[in-house]
Amino acid sequence: MSRTSLAPLPSAAARSVRSSAIRDLLAVTERPDILGLAGGLPATELIPAGRIAAATAAALTDPSSLQYTVSAGTGAARAAIGRHEDVDPADVLVTHGSQQALSLLATALVDAGDVVVVDDPVYVGARQAFEAVRADIRGLPLTPTGMDTELLEHWCREGLRPRLVHTVATFHNPGGVSADVDRRRHLAELADTYGFWVVDDDPYGRLRFRGDDPGPIRRHGERVVSLGSASKILAPALRVGWLLAPPPVVGTVERLRQSADLCGSTLTQSVTADLLDDRPWLEDHLDTLRVAYAERADALVTALRSELPDDAKISEPDGGMFSWIRVPGLDATACLAVAADEGVAFVPGPAFAVARDLSDCLRVSYATLDPDTLRVAASRLGRAVAISRGRRVGSADARPR
Amino acid sequence: MSRTSLAPLPSAAARSVRSSAIRDLLAVTERPDILGLAGGLPATELIPAGRIAAATAAALTDPSSLQYTVSAGTGAARAAIGRHEDVDPADVLVTHGSQQALSLLATALVDAGDVVVVDDPVYVGARQAFEAVRADIRGLPLTPTGMDTELLEHWCREGLRPRLVHTVATFHNPGGVSADVDRRRHLAELADTYGFWVVDDDPYGRLRFRGDDPGPIRRHGERVVSLGSASKILAPALRVGWLLAPPPVVGTVERLRQSADLCGSTLTQSVTADLLDDRPWLEDHLDTLRVAYAERADALVTALRSELPDDAKISEPDGGMFSWIRVPGLDATACLAVAADEGVAFVPGPAFAVARDLSDCLRVSYATLDPDTLRVAASRLGRAVAISRGRRVGSADARPR
Repeated sequence: MSRTSLAPLPSAAARSVRSSAIRDLLAVTERPDILGLAGGLPATELIPAGRIAAATAAALTDPSSLQYTVSAGTGAARAAIGRHEDVDPADVLVTHGSQQALSLLATALVDAGDVVVVDDPVYVGARQAFEAVRADIRGLPLTPTGMDTELLEHWCREGLRPRLVHTVATFHNPGGVSADVDRRRHLAELADTYGFWVVDDDPYGRLRFRGDDPGPIRRHGERVVSLGSASKILAPALRVGWLLAPPPVVGTVERLRQSADLCGSTLTQSVTADLLDDRPWLEDHLDTLRVAYAERADALVTALRSELPDDAKISEPDGGMFSWIRVPGLDATACLAVAADEGVAFVPGPAFAVARDLSDCLRVSYATLDPDTLRVAASRLGRAVAISRGRRVGSADARPR
Repeated sequence: MSRTSLAPLPSAAARSVRSSAIRDLLAVTERPDILGLAGGLPATELIPAGRIAAATAAALTDPSSLQYTVSAGTGAARAAIGRHEDVDPADVLVTHGSQQALSLLATALVDAGDVVVVDDPVYVGARQAFEAVRADIRGLPLTPTGMDTELLEHWCREGLRPRLVHTVATFHNPGGVSADVDRRRHLAELADTYGFWVVDDDPYGRLRFRGDDPGPIRRHGERVVSLGSASKILAPALRVGWLLAPPPVVGTVERLRQSADLCGSTLTQSVTADLLDDRPWLEDHLDTLRVAYAERADALVTALRSELPDDAKISEPDGGMFSWIRVPGLDATACLAVAADEGVAFVPGPAFAVARDLSDCLRVSYATLDPDTLRVAASRLGRAVAISRGRRVGSADARPR
């Protein structure tokens, strides 16, 4: 028997995590000549490597920063995150990025077959975490003002009993929109009424470059778990995220983290605490990010408005890293191959679809390219869309019968 | 409703991970006046903090070492681990410590109700990982020469069909013993015959200070997943472990890691690759560890031989961090409270028991104390055992009817 033929007979959990055909498609677009609007990465050149190097060197003068820590996270990190988020440190659990918080919460709270409501389009990492516990995943169509809580209430009145409702309420990935205060309050009230948990997944909230902050959902109710992350504001490689929740939830998740991977890195938690606690530096750094991302968002959206067809709908970001585009009549998945030929990449809508037909939608990220390069990318994308939509129209015209 | 009363209604998975009464008991023994033989930590003062600081500073000159990486681990880390373990990099998946490898393997390969065979006494982290997927866990009594593969074969002949067999074949935690080559070969043959996976969990193998290395179980068959770790040889806070397996297993686990926490830390994987590839430095460093742990093991075992009762059985380590002790007639859990009063801590046998009665056993670690302090700890432990066994005999004598 050859080693490559040793198929592992995956568990039901392993089989239920969707493999992504689009991931394979996107692998083609990693050629260096292709301008990437597809990624979900923050800008590498805006990562504060110097400040992190200083904090790391300081932490490493004490060898105990290289020892194990407790599953809930170091005391310093929990305290610093508590100050950063204005919550009690006992409500903080430090995780390995906020993806781990999602995965542990899914394991802690959701049994196979339990209903979990997510945004449609959905953050792919959330879908995967709920797939891994074999939840019954329902997609709630995202509106231009965030999660459609009216429809959710209707569903609940009709008898739906979600165990958990997940949303990215601020600068949605991939939808680009934010929920207003009324929807946040409504969602928290529904959670209290119908006894579900809300997961307010917020990696982008600090990257606001326009408009007022509507504040976290937890202000409006108690059945809310907030997720945060250092990945988009400091550095992904710290692998520090966090979960804010009532202590009994923190305790349950902490026990599961022990079996998942024992604990996080004392070193990177120490570095994160140092940076979060350095308020003047952090505010300066966040301002730098906001200015850069605002310039990039404006450059891309402005260019796309002139390069894409007049009937294209382009979301205008107030923060975060993404814009969501709908081009009526486009087959976005087919268009990706054309776009790769033109030298640009994006993620087609179907990658994020739960139940909706999002085949004429796509997600672009403006985070990693400078404004001039973004304008070139927009022009390439415009050509790809024109070619692709032309072909579709052409093939419809040429239909034999 | 107060926030602390918001009980989360845990999932079946969360309920099935055992909470440890002994963990609570051990919390008492964290007083600074108590000499700790209970821990499973490597010695902090032997962590190569200077070499790690140099590698970290070098990595941080490139900001991309702070960016996301792929779920399987950085190319450099997979290649360095491949050289370190003498396997192809395609067979390597980098994990967040080897506990994550255990947890992902359990999720990937085991469905609720599947039979998983573990050593009895068991490595607690393995039991927790298999509890989290609600496996039917069977404990195979550990022998002085490792896993009892004769009994396992008997069980299989009688009809048992394990999905997976987990063992710490080298310097067992907590049992202190190693499996010889014949048992390793036998186990790999049984895996091929009965179609189960062997997990050869090996965090301590490089810490051998006596005797010959019998080599990894994967030398004897193909249905073997090997786990390794940087935690005991470099530093726990790197949070770098690894799994070596045929590529289809690596692929399945990689997909689950994506949903578990996306990826590891590019930075700490880069540092680990740097240190593993620095062969002359690594060999010197490992020699330092081996010499220190040998001295400590000898100091503790020699002292315990004179301090404990004559009928006590004390395992004599050839490497690793632990010795396993049996004192006939002792109630080791009750003895821990006495020991705390005497100023010493250990872990009572029942913490590691699957189906066996290990109430007269205990685990001691010699890793974190110097030889003189270990001799003091042994003397305190000797007093606690004498007092505790005396009480038990006394209370039996005083039994009213």
